Amino acid sequence: MKIGVLGTGMVGQALASKLVSLDHEVVMGSRQAGNEKAVQWAATVGGTAGEGTFATAAAYGELVVNATGGAVSLAALTAAGAENLAGKVLVDVANPLDFSGGMPPTLTVCNTDSLGEQIQRAFPDSLVVKTLNTMSAEVMVTPGVVDGSHTVFMAGDDAGAKGQVAELLVSFGWPPGDVLDLGDITAARGLEMYLPLWLRIWGATGTRDVNVKVVVGS
Amino acid sequence: MKIGVLGTGMVGQALASKLVSLDHEVVMGSRQAGNEKAVQWAATVGGTAGEGTFATAAAYGELVVNATGGAVSLAALTAAGAENLAGKVLVDVANPLDFSGGMPPTLTVCNTDSLGEQIQRAFPDSLVVKTLNTMSAEVMVTPGVVDGSHTVFMAGDDAGAKGQVAELLVSFGWPPGDVLDLGDITAARGLEMYLPLWLRIWGATGTRDVNVKVVVGS
Repeated sequence: MKIGVLGTGMVGQALASKLVSLDHEVVMGSRQAGNEKAVQWAATVGGTAGEGTFATAAAYGELVVNATGGAVSLAALTAAGAENLAGKVLVDVANPLDFSGGMPPTLTVCNTDSLGEQIQRAFPDSLVVKTLNTMSAEVMVTPGVVDGSHTVFMAGDDAGAKGQVAELLVSFGWPPGDVLDLGDITAARGLEMYLPLWLRIWGATGTRDVNVKVVVGS
Repeated sequence: MKIGVLGTGMVGQALASKLVSLDHEVVMGSRQAGNEKAVQWAATVGGTAGEGTFATAAAYGELVVNATGGAVSLAALTAAGAENLAGKVLVDVANPLDFSGGMPPTLTVCNTDSLGEQIQRAFPDSLVVKTLNTMSAEVMVTPGVVDGSHTVFMAGDDAGAKGQVAELLVSFGWPPGDVLDLGDITAARGLEMYLPLWLRIWGATGTRDVNVKVVVGS
């Protein structure tokens, strides 16, 4: 499948590399074509991996991943172009973290709204699915680095889009039973507001190879 | 041990009953002495269980539990009296949920502050420990209703107070290895901001007998 990955950071690189390893054709997008990190990534990965602007990557992808920093995601997606995102599944893995006040970061949006919802409102013709934002890049693409079963959440308004994303997650190594659909895109609120807890769990356990598993009673 | 439990709702009743079952002497506090729910609780539980005002319960307890609604916790604790809370461990299990806008509730404080921190600032002579707010009342006091091991978080500035609360949690049935200390009271932010995700997990799993287990890599 042709996939556009927007963002050249750790998360974008991890997802783009994983997708290439699964035989997808990936173009990594950034603000300007020729971005150093994107060029280096494409050269290292080789094969069909390419790079270009946000718009190039979005136009290329049959599915698009938003792995830009959450504070700039709306600007990046606007640069990508609504017309290049229309009718496509838009996988949003970003967290609207604001590091300008130092550590710990705060959220630029929360409580009554979320980045996932903002993106869905701004791009109503795209099928936004929020997922994977509750863990490190390594755990996203290699769930086996955490012992036993653990949970990846998913939220979005379109059942078909979530089905497609669930398949992608399973191809990453997530057992189908560990993919938990939380409902419509307003659940992005909870997924993003989990980040402050995630940061403390990381601190307390001393490892980013960490996640939570949802457990119920029998 | 003499314990004051502030709050007559489901959480207050569950905790107060559990504490009595563990041979603690409990006074349940509410805005006015003779509160119908508190009187009924004390009559049902029998033994040394009593009820009274927030101030009566706080003065009685060697340890005090804040199980009031988060939106009114500061008022309840003010009514309890700083002098009745001074030098004591104050276990804060409240969530600052605002249901006035309907479902889902929003938080009255989050992101750059938390109820746990507000309480610690307002009552600097008390040793606030935030815990148990990330699950249903039933799971708090009967962790076995959820299968296998799962996690209860704890945050607070005083190591001794957290040690005492950890012992209490273990007496409730929480295995020591499932009690995760997240650090100082600012971690209350993450614990309270988890609530919107908890509500969606409840919705997705269809049961309040649900919790998360923190899992790491080996």
